[in-house]
Amino acid sequence: MKISEFQSLIRDLYFNKDKTRGIKPTFVWLIEEIGEFSRVIMEEEINIENASEELSDIIAWTNSLANLLEIDLESAISKKYPNMCPKCNLKPCNCSE
Amino acid sequence: MKISEFQSLIRDLYFNKDKTRGIKPTFVWLIEEIGEFSRVIMEEEINIENASEELSDIIAWTNSLANLLEIDLESAISKKYPNMCPKCNLKPCNCSE
Repeated sequence: MKISEFQSLIRDLYFNKDKTRGIKPTFVWLIEEIGEFSRVIMEEEINIENASEELSDIIAWTNSLANLLEIDLESAISKKYPNMCPKCNLKPCNCSE
Repeated sequence: MKISEFQSLIRDLYFNKDKTRGIKPTFVWLIEEIGEFSRVIMEEEINIENASEELSDIIAWTNSLANLLEIDLESAISKKYPNMCPKCNLKPCNCSE
């Protein structure tokens, strides 16, 4: 599945609700998912099924925010990460931090 | 670009550094990007170029976490969002919240 196809699916599923809710309340939902993922990785033995669901939810809410801001995430990602590290311009990255 | 292709690019760029850093410190980097995005949407007039970069970084760090957890994000996303809302099973979503 292309990045743009998933953004389109999230638009079809949630745009009306996202639009009514607005950007900042939608951002709060992203943070809620961040919190859920943090609970998963705090466990001594990480449940990969749960981690997969929470990472998917983080991606989904990030797409909702992109839809609200009318950002084409696939284009944005390709521009920011053009097959090399955007900071050191190398692949693999050789930044010091 | 496919979701799996971007995950593979992030692996090629950053996996060695991500592996050395570990899951929780990598999660802290994701949170740092969340913070940067929050600064962008707190402005009265949102800078779409900056928002695009920060959303791309959120997606990139989420992919780093998926790589560390050996999660195939494209499969995980397709499973969680199978062309309908995972809660109400409808498209568009008709959940009350």
